[in-house]
Amino acid sequence: MNTSYLEQNKQRFLDELFELLRIPSISADGAYHHDILAAAEYIKNKLIEAGADKVELCQTAGNPIVYGEKIIDPALPTVLVYGHYDVQPVVPLELWETEPFVPTIRKTQVHPDGAIFARGACDDKGQVYSHVKAFEMMMKTDTLPCNIKFMIEGEEEVGSSNLGIFCIANKEKLKADVVLISDTSIIANDIPSIDCGLRGLSYVEVEVTGPNRDLHSGVYGGAVANPINILSKMIASMHDENNRITIPGFYDKVIELSQDEREELNKAPFNLEDYKKDLGIDEIWGEKGYNVLERTGIRPTLECNGIWGGYIGEGAKTVLPAKAFAKISMRLVPNQGSKEITELFKNHFESIAPAGIKVVVKAHHGGEPVVTPIDSPAYLAAERAMEKTYGKKPIPTRSGGSIPIVALFEKELGLKSVLMGFGLDSDALHSPNEHYGVFNYYKGIETIPYFHKYFAEALK
Amino acid sequence: MNTSYLEQNKQRFLDELFELLRIPSISADGAYHHDILAAAEYIKNKLIEAGADKVELCQTAGNPIVYGEKIIDPALPTVLVYGHYDVQPVVPLELWETEPFVPTIRKTQVHPDGAIFARGACDDKGQVYSHVKAFEMMMKTDTLPCNIKFMIEGEEEVGSSNLGIFCIANKEKLKADVVLISDTSIIANDIPSIDCGLRGLSYVEVEVTGPNRDLHSGVYGGAVANPINILSKMIASMHDENNRITIPGFYDKVIELSQDEREELNKAPFNLEDYKKDLGIDEIWGEKGYNVLERTGIRPTLECNGIWGGYIGEGAKTVLPAKAFAKISMRLVPNQGSKEITELFKNHFESIAPAGIKVVVKAHHGGEPVVTPIDSPAYLAAERAMEKTYGKKPIPTRSGGSIPIVALFEKELGLKSVLMGFGLDSDALHSPNEHYGVFNYYKGIETIPYFHKYFAEALK
Repeated sequence: MNTSYLEQNKQRFLDELFELLRIPSISADGAYHHDILAAAEYIKNKLIEAGADKVELCQTAGNPIVYGEKIIDPALPTVLVYGHYDVQPVVPLELWETEPFVPTIRKTQVHPDGAIFARGACDDKGQVYSHVKAFEMMMKTDTLPCNIKFMIEGEEEVGSSNLGIFCIANKEKLKADVVLISDTSIIANDIPSIDCGLRGLSYVEVEVTGPNRDLHSGVYGGAVANPINILSKMIASMHDENNRITIPGFYDKVIELSQDEREELNKAPFNLEDYKKDLGIDEIWGEKGYNVLERTGIRPTLECNGIWGGYIGEGAKTVLPAKAFAKISMRLVPNQGSKEITELFKNHFESIAPAGIKVVVKAHHGGEPVVTPIDSPAYLAAERAMEKTYGKKPIPTRSGGSIPIVALFEKELGLKSVLMGFGLDSDALHSPNEHYGVFNYYKGIETIPYFHKYFAEALK
Repeated sequence: MNTSYLEQNKQRFLDELFELLRIPSISADGAYHHDILAAAEYIKNKLIEAGADKVELCQTAGNPIVYGEKIIDPALPTVLVYGHYDVQPVVPLELWETEPFVPTIRKTQVHPDGAIFARGACDDKGQVYSHVKAFEMMMKTDTLPCNIKFMIEGEEEVGSSNLGIFCIANKEKLKADVVLISDTSIIANDIPSIDCGLRGLSYVEVEVTGPNRDLHSGVYGGAVANPINILSKMIASMHDENNRITIPGFYDKVIELSQDEREELNKAPFNLEDYKKDLGIDEIWGEKGYNVLERTGIRPTLECNGIWGGYIGEGAKTVLPAKAFAKISMRLVPNQGSKEITELFKNHFESIAPAGIKVVVKAHHGGEPVVTPIDSPAYLAAERAMEKTYGKKPIPTRSGGSIPIVALFEKELGLKSVLMGFGLDSDALHSPNEHYGVFNYYKGIETIPYFHKYFAEALK
């Protein structure tokens, strides 16, 4: 393909991504709404510049969706590119070595050519912008082999609740043959892989209330149930001694993989010592009977993502607080339904609250687990494209993360997705010092046109 | 006594207390150091105006101690008045109905004459200032019956660590016959009582570390020990099914009260339904085999005063955090040593940390439990004084709170303390909307001179 166009425009491609990364488009906090709009506007303008038609910001009840398309021939296949321009919050800010919205290139052990440090660098601005630049490249070199549609949303990090409504309302506009998504990881820069399974998500916030006001722990302590102690007890009870989740019915619909399937999954390269070393831990943890790849790929989990209550300032305050809170998320595997699991959690959590304690469970957002086929023309096109640019056939893997919208695309648009991601798990997604390899960014731009080419050829 | 002087100066006494309450002298947060000094200065000046000698701010490694004295005759007995001008933090600020440092009078059910709402109103500015005004009254009406010394510190809410050093270094200066403290509660405004037992305190902060960075809970969840889940488990394990504390050796030195002593303690008026109604709870909680008065008065406890970790902002963030924290305090009963208990806690907490988790336990401050005699001349003087002004003999009670310095006065100065407090447990000490009855403030000023009178007479 036109690698010379990529070579000639490398610096500009990087500069433009930097511009996008400078916009703090955090969707979880309403204070950044202006930046959300700015990020959407930025992508819209770059699609127009690249030559897309009908580019617009589609209004939703939440953040706008950037849409654009290039229909070169209605008879040719159409690829719907999905991605998101919103990013995770940046707390704890003090752990960032450089400012999260001031992109900086630093070399790391796994990124000897340098990595771009910024919130959203990998998840998902860097990856989504690869598609915008690959599109520009195909347009400017007149090599676009199929029709292309873009749907870039701004609420992925908060549950994509309005994208579902948008899909239902715009079935004709979104008509395509496949959805192409780059929002996942490869195993390593020399071990390409394609995600073919994503866990679903059920995310709740719990509020535990004891007395009607904060109390002096000396005067009342020992006689009144302390919401922090009780919340701790309730959280502790969510796992049994084998680290299995104790919510009644939680595992009822989980499909156990066959021995063959487990063996296939465990072919992915994995070194336990390296894994522990990278994380700075001396022991792993998890459900008895499963290894790390299985625990994060094919088994459901329950994790506290946040907890707070009482006095958390400097020094000591002897308070028995009125309330304590936690954010808890469950990763779901195929056949588990996020609404059903949220309901099971709620019922169970309320049932284990002791007398003297009131519990409120609020559902944040959910997403359904999916497994994507590995024998479809789209998967095979992605496989060929990566093999072409990486020089190695990619390995099919199961990712622990969730892209809630993938199940919805299938349900509402009748479209399968291909998860051709270019990041690394070690890129600190959702963490301080998120980064994205410069190599990975360019490799994405280089690989994406091959996908379109092979996919168009396959459907001819 | 000179009730006419009190009547004539009532409004000014209130205005002056308001001025003191306007100073946000929070000792737990270094940002308020300037206000700490302002509060100390205010009391110093008022002691001078009232006629005290040798008034000074005694420097310590922390906040200054206000000292002042009036020696009218070395042959007469000397009362050392102790109190504190520092206050608790005010979080959660949003629960205050009026600003914590803008004193406001509002009527409440238990304070039909009005209560002063402000941080420190009861604990301890309102009570300590009663002593300053009672002193002024005795000076101006020429009725001071004994020598008096004031020692008003600014670190009571953070463990009084420098007061101990000050006492050891100033034994001669602090020579007295008894310590008089108003920093406790009476049962009700028509049921006076005197505290004769205080629980000790061991206050720790724990830090639980898992991986070396915040992780994406989808990618790593289920395979890496989550510090929040683990901390919850560890906290939950601190109590058994009977709500007894599980730290090995924790109860070894606890002296069980005799049946007679328990009966005596249970003579204090207590209505369980009113107690639950006041707190808005439908059930109480605590160690099996003991009732509320016993659980808060004679039994040791372990309470979480604060917990935090992970994402606690708006919305949802799927993070598996590197760390989680808790502030935990234990109330101790006579014969338990705070250093020993802190050590037992630390050893136990470290021992229950699972593989893959690192634990750091930091000791905040401690205080020793005390029981004060109820047959001493000082106790009897307080009893007579309260009987005189309340028209009822006060009931001896055991308080759940801690005034760590009481045990130290006994050890370092060889002095017993009398805990003649005027607040109510329902005054929201350490909580939002702390208040102090206007009735209680004046009743304190009225009662204190009688204590000095009866105590002087008894030691004649």
